Amino acid sequence: MTVDLRDFIRTIPDFPHEGIMFRDVTTLFNDPVGLRETVDQMAAALGDQKFDKIAGLEARGFMLGAALAYKLGIGFTMIRKAGKLPGSTISEDYALEYGQATVEIHDDALDAGDKVLLFDDLIATGGTAEAGIKLIERLGAEVTLAAFIIDLPDLGGRAKIEKMGVKTHVLCAFDGL
Amino acid sequence: MTVDLRDFIRTIPDFPHEGIMFRDVTTLFNDPVGLRETVDQMAAALGDQKFDKIAGLEARGFMLGAALAYKLGIGFTMIRKAGKLPGSTISEDYALEYGQATVEIHDDALDAGDKVLLFDDLIATGGTAEAGIKLIERLGAEVTLAAFIIDLPDLGGRAKIEKMGVKTHVLCAFDGL
Repeated sequence: MTVDLRDFIRTIPDFPHEGIMFRDVTTLFNDPVGLRETVDQMAAALGDQKFDKIAGLEARGFMLGAALAYKLGIGFTMIRKAGKLPGSTISEDYALEYGQATVEIHDDALDAGDKVLLFDDLIATGGTAEAGIKLIERLGAEVTLAAFIIDLPDLGGRAKIEKMGVKTHVLCAFDGL
Repeated sequence: MTVDLRDFIRTIPDFPHEGIMFRDVTTLFNDPVGLRETVDQMAAALGDQKFDKIAGLEARGFMLGAALAYKLGIGFTMIRKAGKLPGSTISEDYALEYGQATVEIHDDALDAGDKVLLFDDLIATGGTAEAGIKLIERLGAEVTLAAFIIDLPDLGGRAKIEKMGVKTHVLCAFDGL
């Protein structure tokens, strides 16, 4: 029987602000079964697809993205918020509910033609994932899959990413915001 | 022959400010051999020591800390900068070169008596690691090992942590700042 990852994910109402039901993966990662199952379910879903790199979105995409890269025997690339990467970078802005944010990648982190799995813990409106895909494509690499632990389908992010021509996979979903 | 992890670590002069030789682990994680060797060398160093949890320091301690937790079959706990964790937390301040910073842990992330491996990519002055150890001990758990990929011995952080009565392990070291 498949373990339901949602059983390990805590919901915190009104974080980071009123009206948001925050899906908290810290309780998933903190549990040995939750952590192992998340990585193993994602690896199983990939089947025989091959990737050259996993690119993880800061910061909650770093953990199981890197664990999955270890399991698959490939490298892990960080997509970070502005100013955090020490080397030469390219950047993409994206809209937040209020204002905007910027993500960056080292300009030598990927080779042209690399097949990349983009990984984050959760997809909501898809703004960060979209910016991450643009960064990867600007380096001449291809996002052959965008994978998330949690989908919030009511926010439409997954549909937006698929409209960009990028395949997606999610391990579980929650209704609502 | 043991792979020398330093061969995968890029040095960036004058980041984040003049006079610092920044040891950049992004090139280590980005390389399939570098990533795999780092996790496997750390796991080998642990021998038959058993841990209940790995606690990783934000953000570069998140990646291989979680990969190592996956390999060991245990849970992974985040120690984050202030304001990032959604649940009820405890916090510790620590001194930076200029000013101070704060780290937090969820107050239900560990059980009293848990044996914890504290993990970060690098130990310099040891301020963040010391704050992390205090957080873990305040929850009644014990840091039975503090492990780092890189030591900068000239900065004295490892000696400081050992003086707290906490054992340490590092995979490689660089001279200088």
